[in-house]
Amino acid sequence: MPKKEKQNTESRKTSGARTARGKSSASSKDKSEPRRAASETTKTKSSPRKPRSEPRAGKNDTTKLRIIPLGGLNEIGKNMTVIEYGDDIIVVDCGLGFPDEDMLGIDLVIPDITYLENNRDKIRGIFLTHGHEDHIGAMPYVLRSINPPVYGTRLTLGIVKNKLSEFSLPWDPQLNEVSAGDTIKAGVFSVEFIRVNHSIADACCLAINTPRGMLVHTGDFKLDLTPIEGEMMNITRLGELGKRGVLLLMCESTNAERAGYTPSERKVGQSLEYIFSTNADKRIIVATFSSNVHRVQQIIDTSARHGRRVAVTGRSMINIVNAAVELGYMNIPSGTLVDINDIKRYKPEQLTLITTGSQGEPMSALYRMAYSDHSQVTLGAQDLVVLSSSAIPGNEKTVSRVINELCRRGVHVLHDSSMEVHVSGHACQEELKLMQALTKPKYFMPIHGEYRHMTANRELALSLGIESNNIFISDVGKVLEIDRKGARFGETVQAGNVLVDGYSVGDIGNIVLRDRKHLAEDGLVVVVASVDLQDKILVSGPEVVSRGFVYVRESEELMDEVREVAINTLFECISGRGKVDKIQIKNRVRDDISKFLMSKTKRKPMVLPIIMYV
Amino acid sequence: MPKKEKQNTESRKTSGARTARGKSSASSKDKSEPRRAASETTKTKSSPRKPRSEPRAGKNDTTKLRIIPLGGLNEIGKNMTVIEYGDDIIVVDCGLGFPDEDMLGIDLVIPDITYLENNRDKIRGIFLTHGHEDHIGAMPYVLRSINPPVYGTRLTLGIVKNKLSEFSLPWDPQLNEVSAGDTIKAGVFSVEFIRVNHSIADACCLAINTPRGMLVHTGDFKLDLTPIEGEMMNITRLGELGKRGVLLLMCESTNAERAGYTPSERKVGQSLEYIFSTNADKRIIVATFSSNVHRVQQIIDTSARHGRRVAVTGRSMINIVNAAVELGYMNIPSGTLVDINDIKRYKPEQLTLITTGSQGEPMSALYRMAYSDHSQVTLGAQDLVVLSSSAIPGNEKTVSRVINELCRRGVHVLHDSSMEVHVSGHACQEELKLMQALTKPKYFMPIHGEYRHMTANRELALSLGIESNNIFISDVGKVLEIDRKGARFGETVQAGNVLVDGYSVGDIGNIVLRDRKHLAEDGLVVVVASVDLQDKILVSGPEVVSRGFVYVRESEELMDEVREVAINTLFECISGRGKVDKIQIKNRVRDDISKFLMSKTKRKPMVLPIIMYV
Repeated sequence: MPKKEKQNTESRKTSGARTARGKSSASSKDKSEPRRAASETTKTKSSPRKPRSEPRAGKNDTTKLRIIPLGGLNEIGKNMTVIEYGDDIIVVDCGLGFPDEDMLGIDLVIPDITYLENNRDKIRGIFLTHGHEDHIGAMPYVLRSINPPVYGTRLTLGIVKNKLSEFSLPWDPQLNEVSAGDTIKAGVFSVEFIRVNHSIADACCLAINTPRGMLVHTGDFKLDLTPIEGEMMNITRLGELGKRGVLLLMCESTNAERAGYTPSERKVGQSLEYIFSTNADKRIIVATFSSNVHRVQQIIDTSARHGRRVAVTGRSMINIVNAAVELGYMNIPSGTLVDINDIKRYKPEQLTLITTGSQGEPMSALYRMAYSDHSQVTLGAQDLVVLSSSAIPGNEKTVSRVINELCRRGVHVLHDSSMEVHVSGHACQEELKLMQALTKPKYFMPIHGEYRHMTANRELALSLGIESNNIFISDVGKVLEIDRKGARFGETVQAGNVLVDGYSVGDIGNIVLRDRKHLAEDGLVVVVASVDLQDKILVSGPEVVSRGFVYVRESEELMDEVREVAINTLFECISGRGKVDKIQIKNRVRDDISKFLMSKTKRKPMVLPIIMYV
Repeated sequence: MPKKEKQNTESRKTSGARTARGKSSASSKDKSEPRRAASETTKTKSSPRKPRSEPRAGKNDTTKLRIIPLGGLNEIGKNMTVIEYGDDIIVVDCGLGFPDEDMLGIDLVIPDITYLENNRDKIRGIFLTHGHEDHIGAMPYVLRSINPPVYGTRLTLGIVKNKLSEFSLPWDPQLNEVSAGDTIKAGVFSVEFIRVNHSIADACCLAINTPRGMLVHTGDFKLDLTPIEGEMMNITRLGELGKRGVLLLMCESTNAERAGYTPSERKVGQSLEYIFSTNADKRIIVATFSSNVHRVQQIIDTSARHGRRVAVTGRSMINIVNAAVELGYMNIPSGTLVDINDIKRYKPEQLTLITTGSQGEPMSALYRMAYSDHSQVTLGAQDLVVLSSSAIPGNEKTVSRVINELCRRGVHVLHDSSMEVHVSGHACQEELKLMQALTKPKYFMPIHGEYRHMTANRELALSLGIESNNIFISDVGKVLEIDRKGARFGETVQAGNVLVDGYSVGDIGNIVLRDRKHLAEDGLVVVVASVDLQDKILVSGPEVVSRGFVYVRESEELMDEVREVAINTLFECISGRGKVDKIQIKNRVRDDISKFLMSKTKRKPMVLPIIMYV
């Protein structure tokens, strides 16, 4: 992908806001470690608070607060938001996305961080809301080119560390553990971590104080009045912020089209209890998202209550369970956990297996069980498989294929369309309204969602009385500027998708994808010939080779005809007088063969003429 | 695809059952028109019925009734079932399927009808249950090689005729119109059409009398107590059959995982009424399945009630509305319909547009509207788009993309997750149980669904007390045999997918698809060289050309290295003594380059060496 560099000249201005700054930003001009932002931040417990101690922009200050989404808008995943004021930048989240179906062969997608690379000296920190891939998954790639301090809760950083251990970085990352309630000073900003509920433990939203006022970034959240571990979302603190005045709410939109409230995680526990009670004679295999520590905890608790041993299978599930236990996020009754290699010692009805593969991912543990390719587990009629998950959009068919395969083996399968074995981790409409009603923001920006979801979130804001002019549906790279006079969209900075395919990061662009699509649709015909231009003869060839077009053994006649077309065109080209244009020869061979094949087959394979000259 | 011919020797036996046959089969041995089965059938109104007049197999008769699904089991779509007794065959439905995501570049899928081609003289008729693509869509292809009489209701045949008009056949098709209640004699069978409700008008299930007993084939159905036009499903008749005794029920499984009843089509009418009442100031665009004549009728009726003109756009929608009006299935209040070219004469709030594209199909009318590419319609904030449909599994992302694009233009969008603007055409669990409870079959075979759906249907049958041994989960090509001693699976006949891609039917097989997948994932590297074996020199090349692998301009170094690898390998191969093995040279070049690229990029492009010898 050709990189277009846009210099953000404005942000390099020395701004009047500096004079109004608090102590903590004193060292922000220190450029002695150009590739490593000075760790100039301090951590404070948020109470007792002195509401008026934060830096405030003066009356004549024209510095703009700039909100720059680098991912997560008009897409699901790849969440990343830049907040900039004068010479200070903080980054919220650093996630990856999964490829669309037209990104053929791509492994994953990360945000284009050219803007951060161009402003690396300004970056005071990366603040992570929680440990899901779409919020932290790009860290190993981003930390290759920038290395600011990183802040996150214990579980979040535990998962990040695990990820980073598989990559080599040019420097040691600066990971700083925080707890819900902590406030971090970062340049002109101070960032408070506030507890929310989500489908992973230890998730927070962020209250970001800026010289222009308070921002709230929700991360991903739901309200769970009866969470499995830890506390309910801190709606009191959000209400306090709302009372003091919130300038801008950036609110996730994933479930903005869904009415009502998302049920508590405990709902799943009730379903599990029912399932375990009514299937006492079966081995029970539960597949779920490995990061859903509370779900896994509930499965283990239910198993222990029913006298079952629990074995864990699937690499990411084993990793996360180990990390969660080590970090104190999971509590496994002693003697409950057994090694997957030892399950033969127990009767099927004494066992629960917890596994990855709830999205039907090929080569995941559940997938291998379904296709009889798991070395320790063979499934049959004595097994009950519970898919404690829902299919992520785009995965429906893959999940269905695994369910079919399980049914074919006589396995009984329960999934979210037959029972309430999964609840979402995202706020539905009433919770989204609650977030808005508590924080009472002046400006509102829906984030984390496709356009339809952000629009639905906008509708909710309108229904709560936020003025249409104060709602900003933004896009990746689009800068929202806020100053004394108000908020408005400004310039657009470089942003977008960087594709990861194997070792390569960013070298797969539109041309390569377009070619893959063409090859996938109709295959390929290669025509090779050696030509002697002096004697005007064909030295060898034309050879015609096809792949993905027709079954050659049954289409010899067609291939002969293609050769015939190539010979005719080549002779026409080289037998004339005057100078021969090599590019023209290639184009004519391609066009003539394409036309011929279209008329014969109504298909358009890629035609690749390779003419060599001796 | 290589065709493996399996002769069905058994079905060629002269069977004892012939003696027990009724009059109507007298001419069934007539081979004077080998490519055109004699139209030896007669149509009778089903009442007054003489229950005992049908042929019955004698006590010593060993002829087997054979049920052979050629499609629709373990898949969604491509529905086709063969029923065979001695020298007589009838076929129920003749549908197409849509390609899976791993069938790259394929347009559509039709059943492999080798078995019918091998038994063409036995075929007494094709019986169509209704006019959906997955039940009639393969007709133009199947009627190229066989031409038995075809039976269907008026709307069904209207749609078939429309389809066939775009193809050329070697003979005139024999289309015979029937009405619900009619019974057709076809060889040893008699087939009664019984009214069911579905998401297309004029749908029927079939009661097929055979010498072994009565079969019921449900086609697709739901129970609608308040249908828009026509009658409620004829549950009385099904109950009568159940009282007389049904040998085998073949029952669709689409919604077998869904609890409860499917709502009446009128439910959508209520939602439409609410939407039209509350959006009197907007132009309303409704996208739905063109074949859902009753849905379209409701949209027109609601529009007329609200004083709106209706314009229709999208080729299939225009075709179906015209056909439905002509055949008397639709009743449009005079003056309501206006040409799409004349819509500028009316204010937006005076207009309803009915359009195709509810699945987000590229180039459909709604898609073109969303992407500002529709010549008569430009959408904006004054428009409300209603997606009166649900996304067919696999289409979720395409539909979502169109919704996003509409939202981006400020269009207000309503869809089935925000309002009840669609109801399914398929029976949910209670209706499926009703079908079973009424017909009280001895044997039960779930059809029309993936394995998971058939399994769920089986569970329903078990809950109603059908014995597990009497439930048969079958597969495409698998023969269920029923004789005096009972029912069991017999042989498997050739069956499966025939892929249609452009003009070609069936020449795309697994090798071509595998190559397309390989090319799609990692692209292609072609290496071409001319070699003089006598002088042991490279005459020209190696040239290295890649497509869909890397962006060549940024990877010149890598391509140079590939050339280097190729040169080294080629020289090694040709410089040795002894005879040179050309195939071995090719393999070594391919392997060496593949290994090199894997180590450099962690990717596996298809490597295509073409060595020419001069």
